[in-house]
Amino acid sequence: MRTVYVNGSYLPETEAHVSIFDRGFLFADGVYEVTLVLGGKLVDFAAHLHRLHRSLNELRIAPPVSDDDLLDIHRALIRQNQIDEGLIYLQVTRGAADRDFLFPDAATPRTLVLFTQKKAILNNPVAERGQRVITIEDLRWRRCDIKTVQLLYPSLAKMEAKSRGADDAWLVRDGFVTEGTSNNAYIVTRNGTIVTRDLSTDILHGVTRHSVLQCAHDLQLKVEERPFAVGEIGEAAEAFTTSSSGLVNPVVEIDGATIGDGNPGPIAKRLRHIYIQRSRDTAI
Amino acid sequence: MRTVYVNGSYLPETEAHVSIFDRGFLFADGVYEVTLVLGGKLVDFAAHLHRLHRSLNELRIAPPVSDDDLLDIHRALIRQNQIDEGLIYLQVTRGAADRDFLFPDAATPRTLVLFTQKKAILNNPVAERGQRVITIEDLRWRRCDIKTVQLLYPSLAKMEAKSRGADDAWLVRDGFVTEGTSNNAYIVTRNGTIVTRDLSTDILHGVTRHSVLQCAHDLQLKVEERPFAVGEIGEAAEAFTTSSSGLVNPVVEIDGATIGDGNPGPIAKRLRHIYIQRSRDTAI
Repeated sequence: MRTVYVNGSYLPETEAHVSIFDRGFLFADGVYEVTLVLGGKLVDFAAHLHRLHRSLNELRIAPPVSDDDLLDIHRALIRQNQIDEGLIYLQVTRGAADRDFLFPDAATPRTLVLFTQKKAILNNPVAERGQRVITIEDLRWRRCDIKTVQLLYPSLAKMEAKSRGADDAWLVRDGFVTEGTSNNAYIVTRNGTIVTRDLSTDILHGVTRHSVLQCAHDLQLKVEERPFAVGEIGEAAEAFTTSSSGLVNPVVEIDGATIGDGNPGPIAKRLRHIYIQRSRDTAI
Repeated sequence: MRTVYVNGSYLPETEAHVSIFDRGFLFADGVYEVTLVLGGKLVDFAAHLHRLHRSLNELRIAPPVSDDDLLDIHRALIRQNQIDEGLIYLQVTRGAADRDFLFPDAATPRTLVLFTQKKAILNNPVAERGQRVITIEDLRWRRCDIKTVQLLYPSLAKMEAKSRGADDAWLVRDGFVTEGTSNNAYIVTRNGTIVTRDLSTDILHGVTRHSVLQCAHDLQLKVEERPFAVGEIGEAAEAFTTSSSGLVNPVVEIDGATIGDGNPGPIAKRLRHIYIQRSRDTAI
């Protein structure tokens, strides 16, 4: 039985509730973050806080508690649930109010929910063999840079991938890959250049993306931040995704076609290794 | 204190909760309906049920209870909350499960929530004077025909309208109006033709839209179901919206420019009158 956090209280997960009038439930009026825990410590926590503030600010939701409090809550949940490796999920919504498209009074207490997920992150069989990915049209709203809980389409896309025997889907807008269902997407060209879509309102500004590109820079790898076409994937030497839960996760097949020799590529493996090392070194 | 319905129980609204793991809260993985109550009876209830089944089917969510049970619950809430005029909100989600983009087992109990809103529907000052509307880019996902709780953008659009001194916003895609934030949008041309966007994945298939177009047909008014451009609105003799809560609601100003003579138009007023009559006659 997990202990979770809801609006100031630490509760058994079975007693953790929100009002049916919560705007997260009625309007998807909320944002979230998922922070990686390695060795019982938080990875890239400052970057998650920074992005949380950006999301809240875009939606004009005032932070429910201070950053110091957020850190304390994360650490309390790690301790109480004995999380060595896994994830901490955090969600803030605009709070509960009688249903109205107009925002409630700004004094309405925001809803703050956190829970842990124990999960094998480093030892990941899918990362060992490489992901099989399908492409699917990106039908999401046009502010994917805000990390809202409007996750229905990514969920449907992942189910579609599963039903077609794949691990995940890459979303495609106007012939160009935006990102994966819950990760950023990359190819490595035959001349060794890492290509990933540039930051815009079309994609999530991935915390792991930022750290992994930093690692690539440190390794003096060439990086191009630009949209890449679906047609370029077949020509690629490698492909991979980045996310808090998947770290650097190789892709070996796209829409049934093998990428490279069908095994996780050397650049993806190297970045995964370096990123894990860096994460262990900088976790707090 | 309202009595609301949550998963088989009738509860005081302050005790009405869902799990923090509810997929409606974490993934916006749920659909809803809002049914008008006039004289203590349900308007267009069969059409709402039909659309609910369509939404559920598109998302592969099994109905949580039978249609007869849904009718019973609606009537019980009307009775217990003494609703003469107002709305009944219904939401179904895929239920509660540990957070995963993949759907939980199909046997997971769906979440069913209903609550009432007492509201003056017929006597509506905004309908008397006519709505002021702004236009705003339609950034929503591309399956607006499914009535999901992904309502953040419409909520933001309505707040934008309010901040600019208007009542509501009309959403515009590629220069053509799709619909209002929570209603379908219409213009009446100078030759008396009612124009409203044709049904597609771009708009909600409004229950009130269907009934009002039926009224227009009965009155032998000309109707064109096609996209209309923002530029056409300025040329229009009238404009209006339809929705369960707004009925037929005249629009007299768009982006600061007066429509017609600045008063609710005769066709909108006539349709409002006829629709109310028809609703009273057919409510169950």
